[in-house]
Amino acid sequence: MNYILRDENALYYECGYSSDNAIFVSLGSEKWLITDSRYTVEAKENVKGAEVIEASDLLGALRALLRGRGTTKLLFDPKEWSVSALDTLRGKLPHVRFLPRPDFSHRKRIVKSPEEIALLRQAAELGREGFATFAKYLGLSGLDRREKRLHFEAKAAMSGYGEYDLSFDPIVAIGPNAAKPHALPTDVVLKEGDLLLVDAGLKYRRYCSDRTRTLFVKEGAAFDDEQHFSSPKIQKAYDLVRKAHDRAIEQARAGMTGARIDRLAREVIEKGGMGEFFVHSTGHGVGLDIHEMPYISARSGTRVEEGMVFTIEPGIYIPGEFGIRIEDMVVISGGRAEIL
Amino acid sequence: MNYILRDENALYYECGYSSDNAIFVSLGSEKWLITDSRYTVEAKENVKGAEVIEASDLLGALRALLRGRGTTKLLFDPKEWSVSALDTLRGKLPHVRFLPRPDFSHRKRIVKSPEEIALLRQAAELGREGFATFAKYLGLSGLDRREKRLHFEAKAAMSGYGEYDLSFDPIVAIGPNAAKPHALPTDVVLKEGDLLLVDAGLKYRRYCSDRTRTLFVKEGAAFDDEQHFSSPKIQKAYDLVRKAHDRAIEQARAGMTGARIDRLAREVIEKGGMGEFFVHSTGHGVGLDIHEMPYISARSGTRVEEGMVFTIEPGIYIPGEFGIRIEDMVVISGGRAEIL
Repeated sequence: MNYILRDENALYYECGYSSDNAIFVSLGSEKWLITDSRYTVEAKENVKGAEVIEASDLLGALRALLRGRGTTKLLFDPKEWSVSALDTLRGKLPHVRFLPRPDFSHRKRIVKSPEEIALLRQAAELGREGFATFAKYLGLSGLDRREKRLHFEAKAAMSGYGEYDLSFDPIVAIGPNAAKPHALPTDVVLKEGDLLLVDAGLKYRRYCSDRTRTLFVKEGAAFDDEQHFSSPKIQKAYDLVRKAHDRAIEQARAGMTGARIDRLAREVIEKGGMGEFFVHSTGHGVGLDIHEMPYISARSGTRVEEGMVFTIEPGIYIPGEFGIRIEDMVVISGGRAEIL
Repeated sequence: MNYILRDENALYYECGYSSDNAIFVSLGSEKWLITDSRYTVEAKENVKGAEVIEASDLLGALRALLRGRGTTKLLFDPKEWSVSALDTLRGKLPHVRFLPRPDFSHRKRIVKSPEEIALLRQAAELGREGFATFAKYLGLSGLDRREKRLHFEAKAAMSGYGEYDLSFDPIVAIGPNAAKPHALPTDVVLKEGDLLLVDAGLKYRRYCSDRTRTLFVKEGAAFDDEQHFSSPKIQKAYDLVRKAHDRAIEQARAGMTGARIDRLAREVIEKGGMGEFFVHSTGHGVGLDIHEMPYISARSGTRVEEGMVFTIEPGIYIPGEFGIRIEDMVVISGGRAEIL
């Protein structure tokens, strides 16, 4: 099978190294990483199972390689390649057929190896520690701080003050702002009795963590699963989300489709009369990318298998009032979903 | 002129709003922003000069629009569109000719308006304040800290502890690590007598700042232009870089090509016998994106004009030993380069 890859995490998965200016090439049993002179020293130290080619013109080097090997068919991911890069290649290689394979690398990566699961487990554990550090900050001096500052402190805590990269820009949202699934930090100030939603993750040796908790803000508050809100409406929503989250994790089994697992969570919220406010899917795969396969959505026919890692994250969002989400990462192990 | 845009900053430039799932469409004198339901409330509040269309399938809505207007020709930036998205459009619109226009939005944005220059000036000023804050941290407790922690503290200082987004992930590199133009933070610890390179910027109302200083680390050190290194070799390189930086800014004039301004800096370093270690171009435009036109490189035929904003950032990098760079943003004003 001949294929080319461009995405950094796809490259890392193939050969244990990536740079922001590189192409991975696999022709039959031979493999190459093409990158420029800024990166070749590190590439040669780290690349496994592929030869490193140094080139200032990556596409030119790729063309030379394909011509030299007489390649006639080449798979590529059309989501990964820009029109510009592919046209440059295609125009000068009239004898090569470029065959689009959407999500080529994500499909390869859908089942995690034991080594990958160990890294994801460690990422999840460090992520929980980051939440605990942030909770400590909130307890000591979170009150009367603006969302923007809380957002900064969440990044600081999650990164271990510079030790880890984040797997995405965290969401730290107070009350009504939490009702926006894409909430950006504002100047709103945190007060006792507020609802606070925190969605954050970090990377451990490039593998991502992802977790969400929703908190009733009071003295000594922590990111516990049990939360007591002063508003009965919020409490009802919180308990539904928690029940949906717990049910999906307890009842998910290897062999179920993503759609069936989505139902496990969604039914709880629908039966509670709040289905219209659960506006997104129940989860997504996590690995080198923060969003991977399998997708746990109403339309997902993918069957989950041993070794797949994904999130379970039901939510309820009442516009202008509040938003609640509880999210954990799970791995399918022994046929069931285990929280990482 | 009919065109479609996808890049967030290109969208913001056209209509004062963007989301990470949106398309901007201009057909004759009519303009639309197509985005999904998560963003339409904010879009309607903020979009200027265009109509907001809500759609879950952006490409489908775009197709309907093009069909409805009988569009036959459409410009797009082939660097901005993936093969996948363009094929989806093209396949269902056989009567539309898609004309590639690389850097379409960057070309429109190359000359900044007085309002944009005011925002870039404010970004640069806040960026300098960020450097001063970071210098204070270094003086108080920077010694014996690892690069990773210094990198974190630089981000904290530059962001005003959460007030501003950063325009890029800063480079904070000690001694030999500064010789890598793409240095990543390591566990190396900062000591008195070290060289420290800091390249960092922030965004003010979406407009970027970009600045680099190289420092001799001692008590009371600051990001002054005058630096005294204990190594004569480093001092010689520093003085050359500084002279190259100053000469390019003093002698740059409206009407010169990017290549000529690059020469102004490069000649100084070449005459000093260190030309082979100045391994990148002299500068790049800055605006909504951190890298825009005009490029100030040996191959740039672009003539700089009144209102263009770009960096001047010569450097010398001796592999395994040290790296030096001094960078400021300038605007062409009254025919000359003025530091922002």
